[in-house]
Amino acid sequence: MIDFLVVGAHPDDESVVTGLLLKAKKEGKKTGLICFTKGEAGGFATKEDRVRELKNAAELLELDYFKHLDHPDAGVEYGIEAVEELVPLLREASPQVVLTIHPDDYHPDHVAVSKTVDRAVFVAGLKKHSSDDKTWHPKQVLYFSLDPRTNSQRPDMIIDISDVYEKKLEVVGCHQSQGIAQFVELSAKQMGMLGGFEYGEGLYIRQPFRLSDINALLSQNKIGR
Amino acid sequence: MIDFLVVGAHPDDESVVTGLLLKAKKEGKKTGLICFTKGEAGGFATKEDRVRELKNAAELLELDYFKHLDHPDAGVEYGIEAVEELVPLLREASPQVVLTIHPDDYHPDHVAVSKTVDRAVFVAGLKKHSSDDKTWHPKQVLYFSLDPRTNSQRPDMIIDISDVYEKKLEVVGCHQSQGIAQFVELSAKQMGMLGGFEYGEGLYIRQPFRLSDINALLSQNKIGR
Amino acid sequence: MIDFLVVGAHPDDESVVTGLLLKAKKEGKKTGLICFTKGEAGGFATKEDRVRELKNAAELLELDYFKHLDHPDAGVEYGIEAVEELVPLLREASPQVVLTIHPDDYHPDHVAVSKTVDRAVFVAGLKKHSSDDKTWHPKQVLYFSLDPRTNSQRPDMIIDISDVYEKKLEVVGCHQSQGIAQFVELSAKQMGMLGGFEYGEGLYIRQPFRLSDINALLSQNKIGR
Amino acid sequence: MIDFLVVGAHPDDESVVTGLLLKAKKEGKKTGLICFTKGEAGGFATKEDRVRELKNAAELLELDYFKHLDHPDAGVEYGIEAVEELVPLLREASPQVVLTIHPDDYHPDHVAVSKTVDRAVFVAGLKKHSSDDKTWHPKQVLYFSLDPRTNSQRPDMIIDISDVYEKKLEVVGCHQSQGIAQFVELSAKQMGMLGGFEYGEGLYIRQPFRLSDINALLSQNKIGR
Amino acid sequence: MIDFLVVGAHPDDESVVTGLLLKAKKEGKKTGLICFTKGEAGGFATKEDRVRELKNAAELLELDYFKHLDHPDAGVEYGIEAVEELVPLLREASPQVVLTIHPDDYHPDHVAVSKTVDRAVFVAGLKKHSSDDKTWHPKQVLYFSLDPRTNSQRPDMIIDISDVYEKKLEVVGCHQSQGIAQFVELSAKQMGMLGGFEYGEGLYIRQPFRLSDINALLSQNKIGR
Amino acid sequence: MIDFLVVGAHPDDESVVTGLLLKAKKEGKKTGLICFTKGEAGGFATKEDRVRELKNAAELLELDYFKHLDHPDAGVEYGIEAVEELVPLLREASPQVVLTIHPDDYHPDHVAVSKTVDRAVFVAGLKKHSSDDKTWHPKQVLYFSLDPRTNSQRPDMIIDISDVYEKKLEVVGCHQSQGIAQFVELSAKQMGMLGGFEYGEGLYIRQPFRLSDINALLSQNKIGR
Repeated sequence: MIDFLVVGAHPDDESVVTGLLLKAKKEGKKTGLICFTKGEAGGFATKEDRVRELKNAAELLELDYFKHLDHPDAGVEYGIEAVEELVPLLREASPQVVLTIHPDDYHPDHVAVSKTVDRAVFVAGLKKHSSDDKTWHPKQVLYFSLDPRTNSQRPDMIIDISDVYEKKLEVVGCHQSQGIAQFVELSAKQMGMLGGFEYGEGLYIRQPFRLSDINALLSQNKIGR
Repeated sequence: MIDFLVVGAHPDDESVVTGLLLKAKKEGKKTGLICFTKGEAGGFATKEDRVRELKNAAELLELDYFKHLDHPDAGVEYGIEAVEELVPLLREASPQVVLTIHPDDYHPDHVAVSKTVDRAVFVAGLKKHSSDDKTWHPKQVLYFSLDPRTNSQRPDMIIDISDVYEKKLEVVGCHQSQGIAQFVELSAKQMGMLGGFEYGEGLYIRQPFRLSDINALLSQNKIGR
Repeated sequence: MIDFLVVGAHPDDESVVTGLLLKAKKEGKKTGLICFTKGEAGGFATKEDRVRELKNAAELLELDYFKHLDHPDAGVEYGIEAVEELVPLLREASPQVVLTIHPDDYHPDHVAVSKTVDRAVFVAGLKKHSSDDKTWHPKQVLYFSLDPRTNSQRPDMIIDISDVYEKKLEVVGCHQSQGIAQFVELSAKQMGMLGGFEYGEGLYIRQPFRLSDINALLSQNKIGR
Repeated sequence: MIDFLVVGAHPDDESVVTGLLLKAKKEGKKTGLICFTKGEAGGFATKEDRVRELKNAAELLELDYFKHLDHPDAGVEYGIEAVEELVPLLREASPQVVLTIHPDDYHPDHVAVSKTVDRAVFVAGLKKHSSDDKTWHPKQVLYFSLDPRTNSQRPDMIIDISDVYEKKLEVVGCHQSQGIAQFVELSAKQMGMLGGFEYGEGLYIRQPFRLSDINALLSQNKIGR
Repeated sequence: MIDFLVVGAHPDDESVVTGLLLKAKKEGKKTGLICFTKGEAGGFATKEDRVRELKNAAELLELDYFKHLDHPDAGVEYGIEAVEELVPLLREASPQVVLTIHPDDYHPDHVAVSKTVDRAVFVAGLKKHSSDDKTWHPKQVLYFSLDPRTNSQRPDMIIDISDVYEKKLEVVGCHQSQGIAQFVELSAKQMGMLGGFEYGEGLYIRQPFRLSDINALLSQNKIGR
Repeated sequence: MIDFLVVGAHPDDESVVTGLLLKAKKEGKKTGLICFTKGEAGGFATKEDRVRELKNAAELLELDYFKHLDHPDAGVEYGIEAVEELVPLLREASPQVVLTIHPDDYHPDHVAVSKTVDRAVFVAGLKKHSSDDKTWHPKQVLYFSLDPRTNSQRPDMIIDISDVYEKKLEVVGCHQSQGIAQFVELSAKQMGMLGGFEYGEGLYIRQPFRLSDINALLSQNKIGR
């Protein structure tokens, strides 16, 4: 069983939660990634380049679960077919926490992946999709944003990634063809500023956030400066 | 230094976060309560009764910090005077987490206390209010709602209080004159249902929620049933 | 012509507006129900059980119009086919008030039904779908929520169902396999508390609420306690 | 006891709910109006003119309760003094429905009146403000907007005023100095269009709308055209 | 290359931004229109009538780009097919500003067109859809509302169309069969009132509005009256 | 008469719109600044230092109107007194565009200044505050955010400041004691990314944005990358 599973649309979408995945590994947790497309539409690299780049990133992340699907880039369709492809993967990974893209993101593939994940999480939970006649439910489903132009809200939660920031830059650096280093740095600083950390990653809460251990409220940040 | 400080308007306002305070004590944390009024306007009990009831609750809660102010019930005024009364208390308690009423609550005293706390937290942070020339900032400021009629939003975060629910009922029972037992039970069940816990308490996030320890994401709830 | 038509996704979805349907019958109005699926995916009962349970509930409700469709449970698809199936039923029932599920509900079938109803109500209104070359428009389209986890808003309107609550429990009791009695009771009390009634049901307004008779503003509730 | 009480800031603020007041009288209900200022700051008329104009409107409205206060126009202050002036008037009128200005309106007096009414309604409800040791609560508090520039939301509810529109024009015509005829006509048509009526008036719901009589859902409008 | 391209669902949808198109021509800019359906479902006119009416309007508008597609009226489907039909047209027109319907509009065709345009704008921007291996991006994508019943927000921006209002009435008059003159006049006055202009048209901002020339902030309106 | 007037709470608050002020001067427009406090509470510099720093910035900005008030830092009170102090200054400057802090900002002084400006703009518009018996209304009132922790919304409009960015750094550098260089750079890049510019400044729209010249829609940005 996986602890944290990220579901993204393109190779490099996982970059905005790479810090969280690295922290999870430091804590001895199991992590996973499902990527819907091979990123062939961008025009900055071949499909093969992008597959290799994500494979390299996955290795640095020491993922315990990794699937690279082959939906058409800039052509992911929300619907029953995509849901049915994802359901057995979710059951196989059985993550405790699912992290995916916020449905208000700009890229149409992001919207489609987000809606597909929401629906597949529900359907995968039904007994009939289990090998042992049990229901399954993740403890949390959380969302991240890659392009906030069409999302007028800032994230609800900031994860302190200061302790893994250097390693995050290394992982993100695998996506050489995409030239995202400056964006990643800017975003980490901006989220850090919002959270009172040196570097941060932002998450959106859409279902109520569930908390059993109140020690979590005693984070390491300082509000203000 | 206090870990969790609740600031409420009336004796019994703390009832909606009593579970959180009890969990904090179980974890060896220090808790505190500041109550703005003595609740004399309600018409169900004398001022003396309500003071005694809150004192009893405070003892069961084993609070490490407790101040019962004497603002007029149904007449709390937001403004510089209330802020200046609260600032030295905040500095004295120096809580890591501040919990107070959501500003959209129905009761005008709740609105006034909420705005006073927000402003006093800022002012208290300035060096000139310290004994050692240091700034102070809580790690989180979180909000709770006592009467959601004028607050159209449900809480953003649910705390699992199943492990302290019986004790919570005992503490809340101190407010005998107020007849809140049914409300407390209904609210705990409703919040539990939202969070996938047996019993829960709801909190609102208004500043980004700050998280350093990602183990907190692995709560004990089950989404769905 | 039906006065109040409920469109739900599963047998027992009508439970959250059962009180409203019972009040309507008390007032001599005609009521109806369209249910999209036979609820076979839940795993707590057979398809036959659930069909029988809803049939029993429908009888107790003394419905004037009742259609039980056979979309796949946990697989309702929004799209032109579902719309075209619903359009003639809407024209046949020609309800004055349509009540359906809020599109922000958690279950993917609920989302699909909600969107299908919105679109079908529009299309059904066109002259070409009438037997007498007339347009048709309901007076109100209102929404209810079955699972507010993904709907951060509380209802906009509370219906006082105190006078039919006992009968509501009886109707809801028909869905024996689903174990929803506690949820129904909790919800009725919570909505009652929001509205100042003993028991209530909540509705969401998405188009402006239309009111011709201002006596309706003089409800039987008491704000506050 | 008054059925419908309007609280406005200036002579002519009542114009946007004049239709509702006229309908109430047609139904044999008692209506009232409290106006905070005498409108001397506008520069289009003397204080005496405006007082006379509102007095004329009040007579045509056949108000059962009418108080014209003398707060400074363009200088209404929200605070304990205004609240304490309003509380005994609310208790005297004891309205079932209170209608006042939405707090997001543009004019600073509108904001101040809105906040004063909200707080005074709460305080007036306390037993100590009664002559018979009873609490008091209105059944509904609803809001109207006079200038939506700073209110980005359209109204939640449309009242059909087609049956009293001619009479409304007559009443509104009393405010000759203000030149509001075109605004009133435009607003009545626009709200009518939103509600599917010939002429309408819009109201905002901020607490849940309470409904005991479901016949109200069967309004006289037609959605669409 | 087109400066301003409007994408609507039905002949006459362009009426709410006709003023903007006329102003653009006055400034020597190039304008265009893509209309998805031929409006045959309304029941007030034949398909041929509506095609002719829009053709007449297009001529008065002196459009530089005009495509009248043939999606089924009241049956526009959002999906990959509609997107793929629109992509080459967007590339052909290469507009600097795209104006389309707000996705919260009432008519299901409006929702479908809005979502199709958003997705097609993204896809059309990819190099592979260019004739010269270049990406393309409009400078702004803005939205208009034809029926705000299901859109609870007022527009974010008001365009002053007072200087072209007479000509706008002439253009809108081409849609004789639709009887929209009163709606158009009411809307222009209402938007004018919101903006402090004699006549106005409203636009919604969903991505941040981009402004290079700050002289635009010095509009000709007067706030207040 | 001033074209653009900024009203801030502390020396250096103007930093987030310095680019806009510099662009205005480039266009031959008149600019002004009113600062409410002398910034003595921060603890990083003396009052005299901060006054000098703002004076230096004002000179580099070549302001046509500049008032430095002396409200207590961390103690600005919203109310009639602050309004009455501001009204004659607004009339004196008579700006076409007023820019002030968004009311959801974190610092309590920011909230107080924002509310004071909104109210004073209205009051200053009355004839009785003119020297020539005329009303006055700015064409736009726009808002900026200095600390978005308590403002969950991103700005609605991005101004391209790429052409004045170097000069902006120089002006902002006058506030040596505050160490804001990194924040200013990060914010300019982040806003630039949102708007498709190299460097940007963000503004919030709260009243409808008024636009007379549609050429403004043809900005110099590129959406996407």
